[in-house]
Amino acid sequence: MMNSRTLRSALVVAMVLTGTGGVSAWAQMMTPVGPQWWPSRWGASDEAGASNWMTPEKVVEAVKLIRMGKVYSLGRVYEAGMPMRGQRSYKLTIPTIPTGGPFGTNKMIFNEELVTAELGQVGTQFDGLGHIGVLVGSEGDQNAMRFYNGVTAAEITSPYGLKKLGIEKLKPIFTRGVLLDIAAQKGRMLDKGEEITVADIQGAMTKQGLSELKQGDAVLINTGWGALWMKDNARFDSGCPGIGLEAAKWLAAKQIAYVGSDTWPVEVNPNPDPNIRGIVHQELLIKNGIFLHENLNLAELSRDRAYEFAYIFVPVPLKGATGSPGSPIAVR
Amino acid sequence: MMNSRTLRSALVVAMVLTGTGGVSAWAQMMTPVGPQWWPSRWGASDEAGASNWMTPEKVVEAVKLIRMGKVYSLGRVYEAGMPMRGQRSYKLTIPTIPTGGPFGTNKMIFNEELVTAELGQVGTQFDGLGHIGVLVGSEGDQNAMRFYNGVTAAEITSPYGLKKLGIEKLKPIFTRGVLLDIAAQKGRMLDKGEEITVADIQGAMTKQGLSELKQGDAVLINTGWGALWMKDNARFDSGCPGIGLEAAKWLAAKQIAYVGSDTWPVEVNPNPDPNIRGIVHQELLIKNGIFLHENLNLAELSRDRAYEFAYIFVPVPLKGATGSPGSPIAVR
Amino acid sequence: MMNSRTLRSALVVAMVLTGTGGVSAWAQMMTPVGPQWWPSRWGASDEAGASNWMTPEKVVEAVKLIRMGKVYSLGRVYEAGMPMRGQRSYKLTIPTIPTGGPFGTNKMIFNEELVTAELGQVGTQFDGLGHIGVLVGSEGDQNAMRFYNGVTAAEITSPYGLKKLGIEKLKPIFTRGVLLDIAAQKGRMLDKGEEITVADIQGAMTKQGLSELKQGDAVLINTGWGALWMKDNARFDSGCPGIGLEAAKWLAAKQIAYVGSDTWPVEVNPNPDPNIRGIVHQELLIKNGIFLHENLNLAELSRDRAYEFAYIFVPVPLKGATGSPGSPIAVR
Amino acid sequence: MMNSRTLRSALVVAMVLTGTGGVSAWAQMMTPVGPQWWPSRWGASDEAGASNWMTPEKVVEAVKLIRMGKVYSLGRVYEAGMPMRGQRSYKLTIPTIPTGGPFGTNKMIFNEELVTAELGQVGTQFDGLGHIGVLVGSEGDQNAMRFYNGVTAAEITSPYGLKKLGIEKLKPIFTRGVLLDIAAQKGRMLDKGEEITVADIQGAMTKQGLSELKQGDAVLINTGWGALWMKDNARFDSGCPGIGLEAAKWLAAKQIAYVGSDTWPVEVNPNPDPNIRGIVHQELLIKNGIFLHENLNLAELSRDRAYEFAYIFVPVPLKGATGSPGSPIAVR
Repeated sequence: MMNSRTLRSALVVAMVLTGTGGVSAWAQMMTPVGPQWWPSRWGASDEAGASNWMTPEKVVEAVKLIRMGKVYSLGRVYEAGMPMRGQRSYKLTIPTIPTGGPFGTNKMIFNEELVTAELGQVGTQFDGLGHIGVLVGSEGDQNAMRFYNGVTAAEITSPYGLKKLGIEKLKPIFTRGVLLDIAAQKGRMLDKGEEITVADIQGAMTKQGLSELKQGDAVLINTGWGALWMKDNARFDSGCPGIGLEAAKWLAAKQIAYVGSDTWPVEVNPNPDPNIRGIVHQELLIKNGIFLHENLNLAELSRDRAYEFAYIFVPVPLKGATGSPGSPIAVR
Repeated sequence: MMNSRTLRSALVVAMVLTGTGGVSAWAQMMTPVGPQWWPSRWGASDEAGASNWMTPEKVVEAVKLIRMGKVYSLGRVYEAGMPMRGQRSYKLTIPTIPTGGPFGTNKMIFNEELVTAELGQVGTQFDGLGHIGVLVGSEGDQNAMRFYNGVTAAEITSPYGLKKLGIEKLKPIFTRGVLLDIAAQKGRMLDKGEEITVADIQGAMTKQGLSELKQGDAVLINTGWGALWMKDNARFDSGCPGIGLEAAKWLAAKQIAYVGSDTWPVEVNPNPDPNIRGIVHQELLIKNGIFLHENLNLAELSRDRAYEFAYIFVPVPLKGATGSPGSPIAVR
Repeated sequence: MMNSRTLRSALVVAMVLTGTGGVSAWAQMMTPVGPQWWPSRWGASDEAGASNWMTPEKVVEAVKLIRMGKVYSLGRVYEAGMPMRGQRSYKLTIPTIPTGGPFGTNKMIFNEELVTAELGQVGTQFDGLGHIGVLVGSEGDQNAMRFYNGVTAAEITSPYGLKKLGIEKLKPIFTRGVLLDIAAQKGRMLDKGEEITVADIQGAMTKQGLSELKQGDAVLINTGWGALWMKDNARFDSGCPGIGLEAAKWLAAKQIAYVGSDTWPVEVNPNPDPNIRGIVHQELLIKNGIFLHENLNLAELSRDRAYEFAYIFVPVPLKGATGSPGSPIAVR
Repeated sequence: MMNSRTLRSALVVAMVLTGTGGVSAWAQMMTPVGPQWWPSRWGASDEAGASNWMTPEKVVEAVKLIRMGKVYSLGRVYEAGMPMRGQRSYKLTIPTIPTGGPFGTNKMIFNEELVTAELGQVGTQFDGLGHIGVLVGSEGDQNAMRFYNGVTAAEITSPYGLKKLGIEKLKPIFTRGVLLDIAAQKGRMLDKGEEITVADIQGAMTKQGLSELKQGDAVLINTGWGALWMKDNARFDSGCPGIGLEAAKWLAAKQIAYVGSDTWPVEVNPNPDPNIRGIVHQELLIKNGIFLHENLNLAELSRDRAYEFAYIFVPVPLKGATGSPGSPIAVR
């Protein structure tokens, strides 16, 4: 039903648009995450976000970090029983063994698997640009839901994958990776709801001998929380330590491409401000096109004190997907 | 019902086993693909196959091939309408937009996708060690279906993913990659059913100035057939050019790790011998633990005459899967 | 982006609401399907529509039509390869055989099936009250999409099933069924795009000796088109004969509960008016709460000249579903 | 690997077959559930089991029990969070709202749902003839897994649904239904693991004034356990009261068609004999073709002391499925 709140929104929109000339007025409006953030630094039609930092120069820079040839798999195994949010699910079945055959005098048989899952948003998951948005008007209005580069829900909606900002639009990630081992710095697993500050990051960098973060870098944050994975899923899912808005803004100002962590949301949860939810996602994805990689396994990197490496991840190009499964690697 | 054929098989098995002492006799038996091929060169319990060639030394060798920092995405986009075999399927839906929210005063909203597919065996697909086997006894007997390292169907069967030989057992692929551009060599797209011979491979190597294939290499074979992808799917699926058993044996003798191509089975289809089906898969996967990567997009590599590069692919670690989706990259 | 069309809609809404006192003004507005159709005859909170006609008296009336004890299954088998609209899909797999066991000394084994489908909207399908709506304002505004009883998309939206108007809200259908054999009357399968008129219906009733349609009846319309099912799926799907808006209004005036047919949309397709699509669905479902049952197999009823019978169908109570699979039966 | 147990089985089979002329000898073998139970009373090729009792005469008999026109829905709503066994799952999503449209000047929009579930084996579920079998030889041998009418796993196996004994082969169930209210008789909800005996059944019949069970009847057993559904799922799933082998044999001797209950397996669980699992399923389904209907809601029937009624259920004809979803109705 049309209610007073909807009416108010309609009137506000009408006034704004008619009174001051449309888009320019809109451009000055505040949204729940701050002033208008589009067009993006890569232009009004960009759908690749910070993967645009993946230049040949950046690849060459990253390659120089590979000396020993040691490869770290940072992805978790996708399996029944892994931690999962809300009603997300993961199922893999084998449709009979063998699925086909025997064929020919060589009696070939084959198997295959049927996967049903919120892939891209279960297990180790890479958040793409269509994953997170902000409502800037009335609830239920797809023209008032905004994503990266100001794209609206109305522009991307389709039952069969997003029409814009799909994961297949991104460039492969091949960049300098940096581990910020906050757990090592503090000498303990961080707590649920414990916010990692800029000071924490700077402290870890100093301790690790890292002089700088550079444009296009992948920044991995070890909180120790990953030790709970498949060990205490209930606690793992109940919240986590992570960066807050302050650190997100500081990282974004460095023009990094990527933040990963050993927690499910990268950002601190619950937020110290109980009225806030997912604001680091908004700051990074919507406003800066910076990606998040969740549920990484950073234990081996931490153990080896591997703080700088080539970081490689190619999103699975599922057309119109909001995220991607897959295991990134660190190589040094 | 128990029929005469089943009886005959039972008696043969009984005789072999009782007459000569079990496994040793079996070891001398011929199977539809030749003599017993196990234990593997990496031991009787190995489940990683030729990904074992991925040593730090191999990584360092591959890294030396990266000079310009140019990255080629070799994977196709996964989408409705792509060529698909048999009753395989691919579906991606967005469970309402937004899937969740708005939450908080920051009015965060999020989307996710639900994927249902024979992932690992649709689109660009990487064949793992549990994908292909051979029947060495009676049909319907899971103890008579053999895979890599002699593993039986009985040993791997589970509704929820293979208990052995799952894709998650493999090491990340980071190796020297080589493009054999047979289409360029012949000056045309090869034909359906046209077998690529050892002579063809050697001819292409000579023309391209490639002196050798090395242990652990990834060998990509461009047939030109990929030009039909999403252009003429019916023809694409109707068969293809590719290597036959001769070339597969020759490549396996080089101890390469990997064969990829721009066709759906890598191997020639239909086989020149009409009684044979999928024998290259058996030769490579079962007997040698060498992987296949199908439906690659090799056009850009071919256009750039990029014949040597670092080849990187990390299978998505879907527990117990027979294959993996994802886009490999060539970097040089 | 906020465009002039959206602006216009916002202003119209604002004017209507502020100028004349809200809902009462709205009540006088015309929508694309006519004047406001809610609240329903069963009250403003009703979610059961014409299944409310299923009273004990109606059941007793229907039971009297059962004399021989002959049961007709009117549903099609759900199977791969059946006609399907758009990107709808149907997949049933067996997750290995056996899926479980053997268990116990009694060596019990079991199988199960995994189904992935747009169930409720594939094969023989029953359209519920959340299936069809009408946009009465701006595109993208979930408050402007209206369904039965005026319910908005905003009120029912949820990723995991509709919050209102789900199929589980309906009462079991147990009523008098009537076959209108238009194909028999015309002596031929009707054509694609051929509209069945009120005169056709009255002619068939006269020929069949049916004196009346009663409140709560299930009306089945045989067009002969069902003969194409699994025989010529391309033609079956390309369009069909069926009732148009005139007949739908006439049937609705009789206060029937149900219209079924041997075609995929019950209604004529394409509509004789090329600017119209699915208007019979809107007339029946949205405005009258009358259900549609599609892809029925009416051949045997037609062959037996079975024109009056008990009609029984219990929707599968999938919470929040828009429709239901299943086979209705006619019994006489 | 071929082991001594497999060898022993092969030799046993070989001896039996060669020594005494094949099938006739086999016919005299004991299986884990007793002597050979096939061919069925309806012939060697029957796939309909006790649904063959559904004759016109039986329908007419059942119809006579309908006097008031009161319809009871006995099925549970299918929903996230319902009790589920093992790794079975149920997911229903709405692929955006609207899934399609607006179309035409009538601005039609539509929604649909995507269902992924082990339908037929989740929620209220009807067990078909391909659901339960028995292993009569070596594990892993599909020729040694037997189902109703002696059909082997090898005969029915297919990735995309059973080739024989699929649910679509059954006749609609329209029969006399009888409620045996054991909970009412005992004045309490029965306990987990409490076996319902023939004496219990006879006692309930006497108390309820039911003189007999007849060929083709549907027998519903109320244990009170259903009160836990969605109230205490953990306890509901942990076991249940139900009939044991004694009562199953007694019921089968009456040639009934159907046993339903308000528990997940109909039969007592755990079985008083800890070495036994699912033996009532085997007795009813495999040996007698009698169906089970699980997770029924019998509370309203019990409250109304409705002990005799028409029982109607039409399995959803999912080709090759092991079971069916859907809500049976009792009408009186």
